[in-house]
Amino acid sequence: MSEKIAFIGVGNMGNPMAVNLLKAGSKIKVFDVSKQMLEKAREKNLETVDRIEDLISEEISTVITMLPEGKHSKEIYLGDNGIINKVSKNCILIDCSTIDIQTSKEIGKVANDRGIMMVDAPVSGGVMGAQKATLNIMVGGSEDSFDRALPILKVMGKNIYHAGEIGSGNGAKICNNMSLGITMIAASESLMLAKRLNIDIKKVHEIMKNASGNSWPISVYPPLPGLIDGTPSNNNYKPGFSAGMMNKDLKLANECATNVNASTPLGRMALDIYSKFCKDGNETKDFSAISKVIGGDAWDYPIE
Amino acid sequence: MSEKIAFIGVGNMGNPMAVNLLKAGSKIKVFDVSKQMLEKAREKNLETVDRIEDLISEEISTVITMLPEGKHSKEIYLGDNGIINKVSKNCILIDCSTIDIQTSKEIGKVANDRGIMMVDAPVSGGVMGAQKATLNIMVGGSEDSFDRALPILKVMGKNIYHAGEIGSGNGAKICNNMSLGITMIAASESLMLAKRLNIDIKKVHEIMKNASGNSWPISVYPPLPGLIDGTPSNNNYKPGFSAGMMNKDLKLANECATNVNASTPLGRMALDIYSKFCKDGNETKDFSAISKVIGGDAWDYPIE
Repeated sequence: MSEKIAFIGVGNMGNPMAVNLLKAGSKIKVFDVSKQMLEKAREKNLETVDRIEDLISEEISTVITMLPEGKHSKEIYLGDNGIINKVSKNCILIDCSTIDIQTSKEIGKVANDRGIMMVDAPVSGGVMGAQKATLNIMVGGSEDSFDRALPILKVMGKNIYHAGEIGSGNGAKICNNMSLGITMIAASESLMLAKRLNIDIKKVHEIMKNASGNSWPISVYPPLPGLIDGTPSNNNYKPGFSAGMMNKDLKLANECATNVNASTPLGRMALDIYSKFCKDGNETKDFSAISKVIGGDAWDYPIE
Repeated sequence: MSEKIAFIGVGNMGNPMAVNLLKAGSKIKVFDVSKQMLEKAREKNLETVDRIEDLISEEISTVITMLPEGKHSKEIYLGDNGIINKVSKNCILIDCSTIDIQTSKEIGKVANDRGIMMVDAPVSGGVMGAQKATLNIMVGGSEDSFDRALPILKVMGKNIYHAGEIGSGNGAKICNNMSLGITMIAASESLMLAKRLNIDIKKVHEIMKNASGNSWPISVYPPLPGLIDGTPSNNNYKPGFSAGMMNKDLKLANECATNVNASTPLGRMALDIYSKFCKDGNETKDFSAISKVIGGDAWDYPIE
């Protein structure tokens, strides 16, 4: 791969994504505001810079960002020292951050006005997916931008979807993750109801997995231990995908629903439930630990 | 099959179930309180009786009931002319009705005290599953009762699960169907949010089907047309599985949750949503038509 890549944000997700690009033969330099994350990047043989100013130049062919929130993406791309003013028209901008659609569109519009290609390309699949390059990547942008970004995205992910125009990557992701938040609570309600009814949870799980009560949390990622090997619920609810991240995505989904006048009654209740769970100090636990809230005094599984 | 079967309740589900037993070679007589349903049974060459008194005798080896509610099961089995007083100890009682667990346990206890085998064996899979003998059947009862009922149930269904003691069949079914009611609304919320965001619903559906937002309604039975062939949403929301039936199951699930002090916040909200939908005159529409409520003025699909 002949790309010269500037990668910004090498946290838990960004680090393995950048490593996969390095392995694929690209010339990649990385930056992060955290000295600790830069140190971890160097441990993986990634070339780091200490100041973002040293990262972006006319020679860069691809910028990839993996940042926590919309305000960070906006500052990095459009701020006083913004990337948008420093790259050439041959450079493609790929924002892998999960952020609000409005900000994605805003950055994309400025890029478009300057004749610079940009896609929003949030990912799902967690740290393990990032390491194994099996991420799902949902992409928003023009056909040309998508085609240009595709070979780069394929190095980091497995299933790459073109959802629509800029912002649609984040739109598709929050639709997916709102469903996930709801179905995780639904799976918890059904399994804990079975437990209180003294019905063997393994039997109810087996029935639901093969019947109309099935969902991704039931078939792949159950919220109670002893049902499927290798899940966070079998490992003291170490994430995986944290409750804090789910709370963030549910917040994005419901804010966005408000903006477009969409009805999300279960989505809003799921946000309330995760929001309280995080406030109670469970932000860093896997999001499947929400079964503890639903289970109440009938929930008796190990959790740290 | 050498069984002498008395089958009570030959409505939309009971009729094809009885027909499959007839085809399997059993000696079967059927009864229903509805003259119309008896006429339909005769059209399928089923032998009918006009009075339940003419149905049950010491010679019957299997009684199967498929009734609307717990009060009907209780009357039929334990009432003044109850089945329980008329069958021999060699007869097995199979209640395929979806009813409250408490009533199942109550009938089962009386049967047990008389030395008569009984299972609760509610089904899922709809009219088509009944016709094709592909029903899922969830069974509650002793090991012996389950073994005795199994060959008969296999004539009517495909996947037969032993969930636990008497009442557990209905318990497992309401856990499954509560999940189904919630996930159907969740699928509607996600797809209609995508629509309001001007993202192609087909793309979001494709993404969710292959990602963590997946559920049975997304992958098998989407609430919007144009996504999967042969679903009720592609056929003016003709059931399928009616909103009225879903409302009944959600009511059973939540009543039962109250009895055992289980927390079902999303299950309760799903009941509220379906309950209002039925009150508004949509009881006989397929339950996937709930997408109309969620979609509001952005919902523009054919419905009769």
